[in-house]
Amino acid sequence: MADLYESDALTPMQAWNGVTVRLLSGERMTMAIAELGPNALVPRHQHDNEQIGTVIQGSARFVTDTESYELHAGGTYRLPGGTPHEVTAGADGAVFVECFSPPRSDWDSLPAAPSDSLRWPTAR
Amino acid sequence: MADLYESDALTPMQAWNGVTVRLLSGERMTMAIAELGPNALVPRHQHDNEQIGTVIQGSARFVTDTESYELHAGGTYRLPGGTPHEVTAGADGAVFVECFSPPRSDWDSLPAAPSDSLRWPTAR
Repeated sequence: MADLYESDALTPMQAWNGVTVRLLSGERMTMAIAELGPNALVPRHQHDNEQIGTVIQGSARFVTDTESYELHAGGTYRLPGGTPHEVTAGADGAVFVECFSPPRSDWDSLPAAPSDSLRWPTAR
Repeated sequence: MADLYESDALTPMQAWNGVTVRLLSGERMTMAIAELGPNALVPRHQHDNEQIGTVIQGSARFVTDTESYELHAGGTYRLPGGTPHEVTAGADGAVFVECFSPPRSDWDSLPAAPSDSLRWPTAR
């Protein structure tokens, strides 16, 4: 069965300090709407899940062992499974839409994030 | 190796009349930034690929055999592989970020879309 949701249907969870994710998982992947507060840091980490995403608001610097790039709205990234990466939001924070395959089962038990951490979408 | 791209790095392709996609594929999935012109129609179709996405601009009506929903920015959808679905953009068009798993190999040879079909990101 298909599932169509309006914007308030997904529960905001806290993935790191200052980093809120709303997750929608299927059989083969997890989509995350990720919001980083101003200058928030996703510390260097890696996971077996392939990760492909795009910045939809704000900006962030992505750093891997081979690349370092400041991405703005419309910028995209593709990280094969097992790629160490670190992300730092710009002064205005950042919002990403990204997908992981296989699903991020390690995120099944994240703590709830405060709802006032959400900025996307701006009009609701 | 990881790949980080700015917004002009992906070639716009025409998936249907009035529907432009910019694609980024990996081993396990394809991410699409899909832009639908005003009232553009994605006719009823289905594919084995699981599809999960979100509206980031404008609005669109998604219709499956069991649901019909008007989604706006922040609205999300999850379509298991093999789910027939039809999408109609609202009067202002719509932009989605969506992922497919496995990758959309049937989209490997789409025709190029006119670059003036792009509206996202609005500031570049």
